[in-house]
Parts: sequence; structure tokens; C-alpha cells
Amino acid sequence: MRIRVINPNTTRAMTDLVGRSARAVAFPGTTVEAVQPTMGPASVESHYEEALAVPGILEQVALAEALPPVARPDAYVVACFGDPGLDAARELARGPVVGIAEAAMHAATLVGRRFAVVTSLERTVPRARELATRYGFAEACAAVYACELPVLELDRPGSRARETVLEHCRLAATAEGVDAVVLGCAGMADLCHEVGAAIGVPVVDGVAAATALVQGLVAQRLTTSRAGEYAAPPTKPVAGLLAPFGLQAPPGRPGDLSPVSPGPGAGAPSPRPRG
Amino acid sequence: MRIRVINPNTTRAMTDLVGRSARAVAFPGTTVEAVQPTMGPASVESHYEEALAVPGILEQVALAEALPPVARPDAYVVACFGDPGLDAARELARGPVVGIAEAAMHAATLVGRRFAVVTSLERTVPRARELATRYGFAEACAAVYACELPVLELDRPGSRARETVLEHCRLAATAEGVDAVVLGCAGMADLCHEVGAAIGVPVVDGVAAATALVQGLVAQRLTTSRAGEYAAPPTKPVAGLLAPFGLQAPPGRPGDLSPVSPGPGAGAPSPRPRG
Amino acid sequence: MRIRVINPNTTRAMTDLVGRSARAVAFPGTTVEAVQPTMGPASVESHYEEALAVPGILEQVALAEALPPVARPDAYVVACFGDPGLDAARELARGPVVGIAEAAMHAATLVGRRFAVVTSLERTVPRARELATRYGFAEACAAVYACELPVLELDRPGSRARETVLEHCRLAATAEGVDAVVLGCAGMADLCHEVGAAIGVPVVDGVAAATALVQGLVAQRLTTSRAGEYAAPPTKPVAGLLAPFGLQAPPGRPGDLSPVSPGPGAGAPSPRPRG
Amino acid sequence: MRIRVINPNTTRAMTDLVGRSARAVAFPGTTVEAVQPTMGPASVESHYEEALAVPGILEQVALAEALPPVARPDAYVVACFGDPGLDAARELARGPVVGIAEAAMHAATLVGRRFAVVTSLERTVPRARELATRYGFAEACAAVYACELPVLELDRPGSRARETVLEHCRLAATAEGVDAVVLGCAGMADLCHEVGAAIGVPVVDGVAAATALVQGLVAQRLTTSRAGEYAAPPTKPVAGLLAPFGLQAPPGRPGDLSPVSPGPGAGAPSPRPRG
Amino acid sequence: MRIRVINPNTTRAMTDLVGRSARAVAFPGTTVEAVQPTMGPASVESHYEEALAVPGILEQVALAEALPPVARPDAYVVACFGDPGLDAARELARGPVVGIAEAAMHAATLVGRRFAVVTSLERTVPRARELATRYGFAEACAAVYACELPVLELDRPGSRARETVLEHCRLAATAEGVDAVVLGCAGMADLCHEVGAAIGVPVVDGVAAATALVQGLVAQRLTTSRAGEYAAPPTKPVAGLLAPFGLQAPPGRPGDLSPVSPGPGAGAPSPRPRG
Amino acid sequence: MRIRVINPNTTRAMTDLVGRSARAVAFPGTTVEAVQPTMGPASVESHYEEALAVPGILEQVALAEALPPVARPDAYVVACFGDPGLDAARELARGPVVGIAEAAMHAATLVGRRFAVVTSLERTVPRARELATRYGFAEACAAVYACELPVLELDRPGSRARETVLEHCRLAATAEGVDAVVLGCAGMADLCHEVGAAIGVPVVDGVAAATALVQGLVAQRLTTSRAGEYAAPPTKPVAGLLAPFGLQAPPGRPGDLSPVSPGPGAGAPSPRPRG
Repeated sequence: MRIRVINPNTTRAMTDLVGRSARAVAFPGTTVEAVQPTMGPASVESHYEEALAVPGILEQVALAEALPPVARPDAYVVACFGDPGLDAARELARGPVVGIAEAAMHAATLVGRRFAVVTSLERTVPRARELATRYGFAEACAAVYACELPVLELDRPGSRARETVLEHCRLAATAEGVDAVVLGCAGMADLCHEVGAAIGVPVVDGVAAATALVQGLVAQRLTTSRAGEYAAPPTKPVAGLLAPFGLQAPPGRPGDLSPVSPGPGAGAPSPRPRG
Repeated sequence: MRIRVINPNTTRAMTDLVGRSARAVAFPGTTVEAVQPTMGPASVESHYEEALAVPGILEQVALAEALPPVARPDAYVVACFGDPGLDAARELARGPVVGIAEAAMHAATLVGRRFAVVTSLERTVPRARELATRYGFAEACAAVYACELPVLELDRPGSRARETVLEHCRLAATAEGVDAVVLGCAGMADLCHEVGAAIGVPVVDGVAAATALVQGLVAQRLTTSRAGEYAAPPTKPVAGLLAPFGLQAPPGRPGDLSPVSPGPGAGAPSPRPRG
Repeated sequence: MRIRVINPNTTRAMTDLVGRSARAVAFPGTTVEAVQPTMGPASVESHYEEALAVPGILEQVALAEALPPVARPDAYVVACFGDPGLDAARELARGPVVGIAEAAMHAATLVGRRFAVVTSLERTVPRARELATRYGFAEACAAVYACELPVLELDRPGSRARETVLEHCRLAATAEGVDAVVLGCAGMADLCHEVGAAIGVPVVDGVAAATALVQGLVAQRLTTSRAGEYAAPPTKPVAGLLAPFGLQAPPGRPGDLSPVSPGPGAGAPSPRPRG
Repeated sequence: MRIRVINPNTTRAMTDLVGRSARAVAFPGTTVEAVQPTMGPASVESHYEEALAVPGILEQVALAEALPPVARPDAYVVACFGDPGLDAARELARGPVVGIAEAAMHAATLVGRRFAVVTSLERTVPRARELATRYGFAEACAAVYACELPVLELDRPGSRARETVLEHCRLAATAEGVDAVVLGCAGMADLCHEVGAAIGVPVVDGVAAATALVQGLVAQRLTTSRAGEYAAPPTKPVAGLLAPFGLQAPPGRPGDLSPVSPGPGAGAPSPRPRG
Repeated sequence: MRIRVINPNTTRAMTDLVGRSARAVAFPGTTVEAVQPTMGPASVESHYEEALAVPGILEQVALAEALPPVARPDAYVVACFGDPGLDAARELARGPVVGIAEAAMHAATLVGRRFAVVTSLERTVPRARELATRYGFAEACAAVYACELPVLELDRPGSRARETVLEHCRLAATAEGVDAVVLGCAGMADLCHEVGAAIGVPVVDGVAAATALVQGLVAQRLTTSRAGEYAAPPTKPVAGLLAPFGLQAPPGRPGDLSPVSPGPGAGAPSPRPRG
Repeated sequence: MRIRVINPNTTRAMTDLVGRSARAVAFPGTTVEAVQPTMGPASVESHYEEALAVPGILEQVALAEALPPVARPDAYVVACFGDPGLDAARELARGPVVGIAEAAMHAATLVGRRFAVVTSLERTVPRARELATRYGFAEACAAVYACELPVLELDRPGSRARETVLEHCRLAATAEGVDAVVLGCAGMADLCHEVGAAIGVPVVDGVAAATALVQGLVAQRLTTSRAGEYAAPPTKPVAGLLAPFGLQAPPGRPGDLSPVSPGPGAGAPSPRPRG
């Protein structure tokens, strides 16, 4: 099967990172393609940036859905811990779409009762809690700790970011007595096993968790329900700068959406689209 | 004081309608300006459209915040029942920002214990419930009824939309035994008093409710907290189509945001910007 | 419009204080009248005192409702943080009735996600939490701090009460990472702006918040629903000491209640009933 | 031991009824005394009446607490389904105080997972739900049905009230699939076994349940905690009509409260104060 | 009446202890019989041991239900704080069955609003919280403290276990500001009054609480509902080692269950089965 | 990898069925072994039977854990919708253990917001709801419908069970407006795709869902946390009939558990243990 992992920001190094993390859990026969939008912020650390990341995510889904069946993804991962645009992406995509916060929290509750999240900036803590509530894990999510690290600092050579994340994970596990720790930023994906080994409790990377989940959904032949809120959106023009996002009625069967134009920009699959 | 009511869709008749509804509750000395984005969908009836409406809302806030103090709004109303972009708008605006779903639910719980929402399309019901939960009104919101009316149908001459809304409000009040009914679409704003008189329980229009609330917040000299998640977003470039939304560090004090360019389009205040 | 603010205790200085706080947010055309009961405890710091304050509140509502239309209040504020007698007052009053705990919590959630309450005595903390739950703000109310200050000490010349309140507000904001602080006692009303300026997060005074809210409800022509639990109470004799509280069927339309006797005592509007 | 059952209204027939129901579950050695206030409404069917019933309940507790130890009750039952004045009574009484809604809900959850309440008037339904939430039984309480019967009608010779209650209990059990039915009015106490036999699920009368519970608490030597909100209320004058309710500091140990005057009226034990 | 207290582990000293604790709250006319299973672990400190304790509990219920009416228990107490097998026991027993965690939490909420639990091992804390949620006391249960004491250590001569429990109870009461403390292990039963006297808040022993509760239920003639999930289990063979637990259809009326064989072992009533 | 699917009842046809369902979602390289206990009830339809099924489940886990590494399962699925013994099994197993109710609910919330469960007997409905609450899906689980079909009837040739399940799934989807339907019994596993195609919403079989989930967890190298409640249970003798379940301290590292005896019976892998 073919899984498309969408990095919602426009930083190529992050796209490569989430691609690697996803491929590490790909089963034989699964191809992982990591892409990033042609538009949007370099990283997502505020509600404002999250809102601006969403059109780019939708662009990537629309572009992929317009591919011929043989090249079309079976499922999508949205690889930013705020799970931006998840509901909208579900309306567009034929296959299942899973966010990495969602996936990480699901996985954490399967290996223990309570987990803590370790995230980047303090200001993103309330969003993490809101998502925990949205997904049913308000009680399971015992605490959210912030490292006070900007997302892009995680990857800067010479930064002490890795040590900082490790220390916060250890603190979260100890102080809260949780069963597991969730890494609250896609940029921490490659720390997962290292931190887990160091602190002695399961540590969950949402990119791997989401990639594992969508493979499982495809294996079950399950996809987003079309019965209610996730039915294909109405076809309707969109004005101004966002005009390329207008949807036209598909020539064929309902649900077969494609953007009016080929989309505002070409998708940007990362160099090694392989499982 | 100066209240800017943002209609998140690009349909002028809706902008005029929400402007009238807001002005009806303006206190002496309050000026209401109703505007609409230069970009985005003609109406908001899906997660996809909601996501695409957000940049236009943020554009309108950024444009208004860039005005000289004398012309700058003291507060904002986001006039779509899904409360799109509310958190992001709060990061940008100096004054308070209130959504109409939020406001209507607050008002309804002040005149009774339980309320029902009557909304447009069935597919928007889960979003209405999600908002009720987000605002603390999961228990107070006894039911959400859908009229199965597209938003723009509400305003079409000769349509039976008004009767349909009235019937659903009556049904909701009777079948659920609620104390109040909330109109779940900005397009229903002008039905508020008529329906209330007909069904004998308070009927709440979110546009009026939000306008009343923000006036009260300004009178209390209260605005969005800058202490945590709603601090001004980081200044950071935005790529591609959305580049005009990049923020640059303000020359003066922090929090004094202005978009890099004058913004992707001029604001569109409706003709009679008056209290 | 005419707003009657009822101080539920019998301490005149408190009545004057809440009157000033309410008037500070009155819009042009609004008249604020601050009154106190002829009966009841000097301050409310226990469940016992709260119970004993309620008849006096109801007396004041009944007296005001018996006034000729031109002098009758359009709405009421109950100015004690326990919101005593709120449901009963809603049954008696034609116009909306809002409590100050209720109002402050509503306002706090409009300027941030989570708030802390700073109240007087430790023993009142559970009541504050119970109200937060009642109003839907169990999650939004992150903490309740007690200053361990008796209510009347707040106003005693030479007391260090103001410093104590300020310190607790600062502590609450810092330790809990909340977006806003709610003053949990009507006696703290005049500290609102001073404390807010000192601690850098919005500080909400319930008297101002409630006065703002009821003005907004009146502007929306909304009042307490008569459809269910808040319908006018049955007319029925009351025995013994409380006999004056017996209700007789109104000569005219239902809902037009007036006590059997002119009421157990004359209302006590404070000297400057002006907006 | 000595249990005082307080009927919060001033209708003697109700006092006798709750006395009988309590005595039916008295263990050997337990004396039940059923009393009623000297003041207050003839029945409690609204928030207003509930508020007016509270002073009379507190009067009865204060009078009993002022008795010499040999005659003093070991525990109290407040026999109105709204549990009026419960928190305040707990501050006054040395022994435990239990309300009949509280007790009935506790008992119902011990004989099944979910219960329905069958109450008198529709307008009291929200109060019943609020109490269920307050006591932790929001989920266990599957439904509240109203018979639309005034309280005093239950006892009127020739009324069809008993049949109506039975029919509603049967409906509640069948339609909701609950494990048990709670009688939501003290006036239904004597229907308990008859209805239970007729509908085939456990039916709980709160008066019996509360009497059973307080006997158990006394046997365990448990009484209301004095550590926090239920400590003895401050001694403080009370003004006007309610002056007799002022508390003075006890000569002896703290917690030994007695009203300033002998109280506004003599207690009214029902004729057969016997277990 | 006749109350059978089942100690779910196979340690005789614990059986004797819970028997004493139960008898201390027996009313005149109540006989308490404390028994233990013929099979299962010596103490219950893990999910694994809890699971293995359940067959022995069910054996004891089945044996007792097979007794002639005159010797048959009127009610049961399951005396392990994890409340193992409670739902299954309810299906088997004619009379009510109450667990000690359940009972202690019910009692604690009748003498205060919030309680803390002091339990044995840290690993049992999540189970205690899960039970609090199951019974509706998620909010009332403010904290669970572990003494890190194995259950059987509580009874070892010369151990400092009693001091450790006392210290943790004091800490729990102070740090959490709770109204009451619940002893989270049957092995702590005899510390109840001593600890309560020392720390000044009510301390609840679940064995006494459950014994008090079931006596009250019997007095009310209430037993487990047979209408739904607690109906008698289907008669069906059981394979292998557990074959003696197979149920056969009763000769007489439904609900009159008895195991196929006399049960896998004889019940073990403790020496002094007396009220 | 090697996945062991444990059918908790002793009916071979069910073991074969769950094996087939699991293998249908096995990725290349995954071997599925379906086994059943040597002891326990023929089907699980009551709390009593669920309790009696648990020892057999634990026996199967212990036997598998005692295998040499090359033959030892990487993960387990407990294939009964009540998720019996899940917590205890997690304490015993090195790899992750997932229950089918848990898994089905997780999967359902990834393809829609709200789901309904269609289960076998009415009496199992409350258990299904309890599990939904335990896993965080109390709100997502909109309804539980019972077909009133005994588990073993599902497989009986000539029965109308399949039609009955289909009709209830259709009813659940339509009446509740849910996004997905969860099959609430392992015995319905093979109806999944057929029913889904018929009713037009995603239908989730827990056996497939759990098999997919554990494969994903193994791919992520995640297993049950050993940090708290799921640490290996204490080594301790077990008395009587269950003596074979006693645990002895492992010779090597902690966590390396093995039962005292080789276990009460040999595992019973179904004939085609292949992915």
C-alpha cells in the first residue's frame, strides 16, 4: 500500500525526518511518501501558524487524490502535533487520514493507562490538552510538559535540544507516575527509542504511531465514514487568493473530488518515497 | 467604541445581515462595522470550507489592527456558527474576539439551564456539539437539530426557509423541553425575535449575543490574555501563496503586529458602518 | 435601562462598593441601583449564612417587581460570589438575573482558556468549584485560591487585605499558568484594575462582569425562560416567620407576581442610582 | 440511637408519612422523631419554595442541637427530594445529615447500575438532575420522569395519584431499561413496596434510604467532617426578620452552636417518636 | 439478619480481622459470618491476583446460596479494596452484595465533599481511581496515596506498618485539604478509629461501611435488580479445571442458582459468626 | 512477527473464526496463532462467565510466555468483546496485549466521530458502555444495540442470526446518525465486510482491529509499560484449585515470569497458525 505523510510546514529537513520515522514502521509492501506543502509557515507554533498551515495540507491531499489510481495514496498521515486540518482533510481524501497527536495518544493508551506529553513551547500546551479531550483521552493525559524549545531548534546542529527533551521526558515520567510519554512534536520523532531506553517507560512518536495506524486501517479496508460530517464537501467557488481551492463537481461518481485547477503548486515528495 | 463584525464568507448579503443584527444591540456610542474577507468560500458548510474561511478572517483582523488607533476596532465578532479561526484571531487582535456560537451558548445558559441548537445542514451538527463541549456547555446543550437548509437558501426570495427554521425551533423546544433555542447559523439572525415570539421560549441569535458580549468586555477593559497561548504569534516568513500572511517583528512594542505587506486585499466594510 | 444590583448581605459599605463597580461599566442610558436586604447576615462566609441571605435577596426582587413599570428594574445582579438564591430569584423576576460568580466565570473564559479564582476563606473554596461545575467551567477553572481573609476585613482601614489579595492573585497566575484571574468575593471589586495591571493577566470582577452581561441580555431582549423550571412559582401560603413571603395569584396575567404584603421591609437603594 | 427526620414543609400529614417510612427501617434501639418547621411553605415545588423552606430546616436542627445530650439526635434526615439546606444543616449539626435524594440515589446505585427518577412536577426535573450530578450519579441517573402531580395531591383521598405514580414508574423502568426506580418526592414514600412489586425492579424511597444510611454512619461513628467547608459557621449577628438565626460563640468548646434566642418557634415532633 | 463477609484472599488472619470490623457495626439481630475461599492468592496486590481471587469469591457465594433458607445470608460484603468479582457475585446472590471500596467511597461522600484514599502499594493506585470513576466519585476522590506496604505486612508483629499508614493518612488529609480519608485496604480496617482520632478528619474503613450499607439495604428490602445485566447467568457447562463452576438450571423458580457440584470446596466461616 | 489471538471461550468454532479474521489483516511476515483455554465457559454472556473465562486466558498467556524466544508471541489479542482479563494479561505478557472491544472502539474513532455498538444480548450492553468509558470513548459511543442473540447462535447453521445482526447494524446507523458501527461480539467477525457494504458506513470487527493494532505496536517496538500497575505481579503461592497459577520468582531477570507448573493444560493452537 501507499501512505502519504504530509509535513504541514515548509521545512524540508522536517519532511525528511518524518519520512524516516514513518518508513521505520512500514510493513513489507508499504510505500511511504513524505511531502510538504508549497505554501505556509516554516514551523507551526501558534494558532495563527496552524491556521495558515491548513491550506497547504489540503493542497497536498487534493493533489494526491487527483493522481491516477495506481499512484494514489491509500492513506494519509498529518505530521504536526496540533493535528491541523484533520477534519477537512478527511472530507477530501478517499482513504483514512490520521494525525500524529491523535495516533500517539491512541498508542500510548494501549501500552498503559496514563501518559504525559512532552511538547515544544509552553504556548502549545493548551492545544495538546484540547486534542486529548477531543480524542477521549482527557483523563489518560495526566500532564503536558513544555521544553520551551522552538520546533526548528530541535534540528539545529550543536543545540542542546536533545538533552532538553530527554530531561523533560524523564521529569514527566517521574513526577507524574505515568505509564508512557508522548513526544509532542514531529521534530522529536527520531528521539523516540533513545529516550525510551533512557527513561525506562514506553515513549511514543506520533509519526510512527500514525503510520502504523493507517496501515492497519487499510488492512481492515476501513476508511473515513462518508455518512455524515465527513461526506465530500459541497462544490462551490472560492474567492480571491484561495480561488484554486474551489471544488468542482466530479465528472464521475460522487466523492471523486478534484480541485478546479491542478492546485496552487506541485506536491513535493521527499527524495526517497519508499517503504 | 468600535466593534468590527467579520462575516467569514464572501457573500455580501450575509455581511449586511450580520451588520444589521449587530447594530440592533449596539449601545449609544458603539459603532459597528461589518466586513467580509477578500478571499474564501461563499458560505461555510463543511470542515473544508471552514478551513478555507480562516485566512480571510485573519486578513481582516490584520488589516484592522494596522489601522491608526482612532480607526482601530476595540473588539471583533466572528460571525459564523463554527467559530472559525477564533483562537488564531485572538493571537492577532489587541481587543477581545468572540465567536457567535460561543456567544449564543453563553447567552442561552444565562436565561435557562438547557438549550437546543437549530442549525443548517446535518453535517454541521457534530461541529456544533464539539463547540458546546469546548466552551463548557456539553451538558447544557441538550440537542442540535438540523433544518437541512443550505446557508444561502436562508436568504433566497421565495424560499420556505423561514418556515422551516421556525418549525425546527418549535420542535426542538417541545421535544427536548429546553429553556432556550440557539440559532445555529449567522444567516438566521433576523429570525430571532419572530421565532421567539412564536414558540414562547427565548431564542438566541449569536451575532447579537457576541456583539453584546464584546461591548461588555470592552466596558470592563478586558481583553484576551497575553500570558499564554494567545500571546502574539512568532514573527516568521510564510511561503508560497500565503506569503502575504508572514508576520514581521513590529518596530515598536511587542504585540503590535502588522502583516508584512498591506495584506492580500482591502477590507470590505459594509455600506453603513454605524451603531 | 435600569439594573438593580442586590448586595445579599446587610453591610452598607459593601452595597456602596458593588454599586460603584457596577456603575463603572454602565453604558449611556443605563441606571444602576444598588440595594441590600432588610434581613440577613452581615457577610456571607458559610453555607449557613448563604442560606440566610436568600430570603433577603428574594425580598428585594419581590419589592422591585411590585414597582410601577417605569421604576421597575430591567434586570438584576446578585452580588455575592456564592450566587445565593439565583434560581429562586429567576422565578420571581421578569427580567434576567445574573450572579457575579457566574458572570465572572463567563467573562474569564472569553479572554482565555483557563482561569483561577482567588477567594476569601478556605471554607468557601468548594462552593466556588461547585459553581464552576454548575456553569460548565469545571475544566476552565484551573484552581481556587483562598486568601484566608474574612470578607469584611477587605474593607477595614489599615488592613493589609489589598496586599494579600494581590499576592494571591499573582501566585495563582504564576503557579497555575492560567490566562485570567477571577476575584472570588464582591468585596474585592475595586481591586480589579489595580491587580490586573500588577500581575499582567486579565483580572475579572464579577460585579462588573454581571452588570455588563445583563445589559447585553436586555439589549438582546432576552430574559429568563418561562418554559420550565423558571416559570413563576405556585401561589401558596407560607407559614410562620416567613409568612410575608407567601405569593398570591396576580390579578392580571400570569407571571405578574407580587408578595402578599408589601414585603417584610423597604428596599434600600444606595444614594447614587446612576449609570 | 436517635434519628431526627425533618420534613421541610409545614404539612403535618407529610411529616407523619415520612415518620412512618423512616420507622419502617429503624433497627432495634433506634428512635425516629419526625418534625416539621414552624415556618415555610406548605409544600416545595419550586426554587422559591425550596429557598423559603431552608430557614425552617435550620431552625429545627438548631433546636435539636440545643437539647441536652440525652435528648439530642445522633443524626438527621432532610426529607424533601430537593435536599434543601443540606450543606447548611451539616454546618450546624454534630451528627451526620443526609438528604433523601442523596440517599435514594446512593441506594439505587448499590442495587443496579442505572436508575430513573419519577418525580412530581416537570419543573422539578432539572433540580433532580442537578443533584444527581452533584452526588456523582450523572451517568447512573438515566432519566427523570415527571408525573405532573402536585405534591399535596399525592395524599388527597380519592385522587388517582397512586395509579399515576405507578404508571410512570413502570414506564420509566421499561423505556429506559434501568435497573431501579427512585421515587422523587417524599410524598411517595408509602408507595415504594407496592410499586416495586408491581413493576419488578427495585424501587427506592429516599426517606427509608436516608434513615438506613444515617443509622449506618452512626454505627461507624462517622459524622460530617469539620476540617473544611462544614466547620461550624462564624458567629455573627443576623439582621431584621431573621435575627433569631444569629449565632453566638458557644460558652464551651467550638462547634457547640446554639442560636441566640431559643429559636423562632418550638419544634414539632410528630406524635409517635419511636423506632 | 445474616451478613456474609467474604475475604477474597486465603489468609485467615485477614478473615478474622474483617469479621471483627464488620461485627463492630452490626445492629442487634444481625449475625456476621466472615469466610474465605478455598482457592486463590494469599493477598491481592495486582490485577493478576485480583483475577485469581474471583473464582474463590464466587465459590463462597454459590455455597452460601445453596444453604437452606434459614442459614442463607441476607447479604454479602466483598472485603478487598479492588472490589473483585462484584458484578459476577451480584448475578449469583439473592441478596445485595457490596464491595468495600464502593462502600467506603459512598460513606466518605456522606460526611464530606472530597476524600483521599490511602492504599497499600503504588501499583494499586490506578485500580482505586478506576473504581472511584466507576462509582461516580471521580471528582470526589481528590487523591490516592500509597504507603508502599504489602498487604500482609500490615499485620506482621513488630512492623512499623501502623505508623506508616497513620503518616500517610495525615499527609493525605493535609496536603489535599480533603474532608475525609478512606482506608484503601481491608488489612487496615482496625486502624480506622485510631487514625481518625489522630488526624482529626473522618476516616472510613470499607468493611464497616459495607456492613452498614448492606444492613440498610436489607432493612429497606432492596436487593440487586434482576431486570438487566444482573439477572441470573445462563446455565451452561464450564470446561476443565473450573468445571465445578458450571451452573445447572434450578429445579424450581429462576434465579435459584446452585452449582452443579457442591462446589470446589467447603466454605470457611471464621470461628465467631456473631453480630 | 508472531501474534497470538486468544479466544477466551472453549468453543473451537469460535477459535477458528477469530483466527480467520485475524489472519485477514496480517501483514507479510506476521504469523497468527489462534488458541483457546483448557478451562472455562463455552461462551461469555454474563459477568459470571466473564470472570470464569479469565483464568483460562491467563493460562494461555503464561504458557506462551514460557515458550523459547523463537516460538514466543510478540503480542496478544484477547478476542471477547468484554475484554476479560486484559489488565491481568498485561502484567504477564512481555509483548503488548489488546482487547477486541478496545481495538474496535479505537478504530471506529479513527474513521468517524461517533459510533454505535451492536452486541449480542441486552444484558451485555452495560459492560460495553463501561468499556467505552474506560477507554475514553463514552461520548464517541453514541449507542449500544442488542440483537438478543446468544453468542453461539451466531454460528448455528440455518439460524437467522446474520440477518438479525445486519438489521440491527442498519438500525443503529440510521437511528443514531453515527459514522461507524462496531460489531460487539467476536462471533460476528466474519460479517464485517458484508454488513459494511450493505449499510454504507464503516463496520468494525474488533478481532481484525486488534490484530492490526498489535502489529503496529510491535512495529513501533512498543509494549506494555512496566513502570506502574502493569509491572510483573508479585511471586506468591496460590491456594487450592488454582494452585497451578502460583508464580515463582524467575531464575533470571525480573519480569521473566513463568508459572510454577507447566500450567493446568496445554495450549490449543488452531490448525492453521499462519499469517
